[in-house]
Amino acid sequence: MKQILIASTSTVHGSGYLDYLLDALKIHFKNVDTILFVPYARPGGMSHKEYTAVVQLAFSKIDKTVKGLHEFENPIEAIKNAKGIFTGGGNTFVLVDQLYKANIFDALKSVIESGTPYVGTSAGSNICGLTIGTSNDMPIAYPKSFQTLGVVPFNINPHYLDPDPSSTHMGETRETRIQEFHHFNSQPVIGLREGSYLEVLGSKITLKGPLNARIFEKNKTPYELSPETDVSGLN
Amino acid sequence: MKQILIASTSTVHGSGYLDYLLDALKIHFKNVDTILFVPYARPGGMSHKEYTAVVQLAFSKIDKTVKGLHEFENPIEAIKNAKGIFTGGGNTFVLVDQLYKANIFDALKSVIESGTPYVGTSAGSNICGLTIGTSNDMPIAYPKSFQTLGVVPFNINPHYLDPDPSSTHMGETRETRIQEFHHFNSQPVIGLREGSYLEVLGSKITLKGPLNARIFEKNKTPYELSPETDVSGLN
Repeated sequence: MKQILIASTSTVHGSGYLDYLLDALKIHFKNVDTILFVPYARPGGMSHKEYTAVVQLAFSKIDKTVKGLHEFENPIEAIKNAKGIFTGGGNTFVLVDQLYKANIFDALKSVIESGTPYVGTSAGSNICGLTIGTSNDMPIAYPKSFQTLGVVPFNINPHYLDPDPSSTHMGETRETRIQEFHHFNSQPVIGLREGSYLEVLGSKITLKGPLNARIFEKNKTPYELSPETDVSGLN
Repeated sequence: MKQILIASTSTVHGSGYLDYLLDALKIHFKNVDTILFVPYARPGGMSHKEYTAVVQLAFSKIDKTVKGLHEFENPIEAIKNAKGIFTGGGNTFVLVDQLYKANIFDALKSVIESGTPYVGTSAGSNICGLTIGTSNDMPIAYPKSFQTLGVVPFNINPHYLDPDPSSTHMGETRETRIQEFHHFNSQPVIGLREGSYLEVLGSKITLKGPLNARIFEKNKTPYELSPETDVSGLN
């Protein structure tokens, strides 16, 4: 049975790294002592080692050990043997490029579908969708494809931001960008505001956290869904 | 001799499409009656025809005729025969994907380097740089490469935005994103604020418009350059 948390962000304003998610992580990883961490998204360009240390610090608050995927000679075997997996945020293009270069996508998809508990934040959540076509990140690396895990039947837009009515900036709003996406792509998109996450348990997908999510379907007006709504019908 | 204008945006807040640039366009296209318009970036997903009508409306204020590239059976021949070329903004990935599909990059680079006057705004400016690795756009299409014209020896970041100190949003600032770019890429990046543009005349590249530009070089602290500065040494 799939067990996945797909979180908009690692950090909500005013609290520490992963703090707002720790209660959920404790339950999600209740049978897991050592979590395999995928550090490939490298926020701020930090090294895999530095990033893993940040994550270890957070998970030590709920008594979990963290091993970075870069520590293993055979990352595919490491994925297959993991009891629980966490992929952190950073740059989605860098993450996906490295996952393709290390040939990891198939193994990762396979263990997630077999029930290894998985958690993603931001870029680590983007890759749970069908493609990274709704990433907010700068395309600083060129991955061999934009296709990703597809362990949920839609795309994720993390850090979803409502339009700022006072802005004089002429760049597109997030909503405009996602609507442009639907001129060229058909899958639904869930805009997850910071503090929101999806809990996937088997075929059930539930919106969690204090906020609504904004749903974008091709040829439909975008709409809001409340926390605790089952979104598994969205595909 | 190269004759290029590379503008951050088509539209500054409070005025109409291309209005702030019309005086510069009049000079830039002084010997051109009919401008070939590349409508491929399709802002808001609009059709090539609709987009060309928007551009015709703006250029009619300076007595220019506009022909859309989509109107030609042979777009490569159309590029080669054009007296002046304008590429508008929209989505950079959609634009680059279509330029590759129509096999246009080589012809476009060749005529620009031979002196056909070229103007780009936003996505149409991004493609003047070495790659689209510093685009702000959502990756809603997957082009066969991120490499672009390279008619200037650096990358462009259009719609450059200064960090908002009051923001509680946890997404990266533009400056952070460009600094991440430099962990994986080495070319300089010019952050062009809205209202700024680069004027390329032969080997001279001058910052124009009322605002400073922000310059990012690998392993250097970002810095500001004033209008009228020659940036051709940046490479």
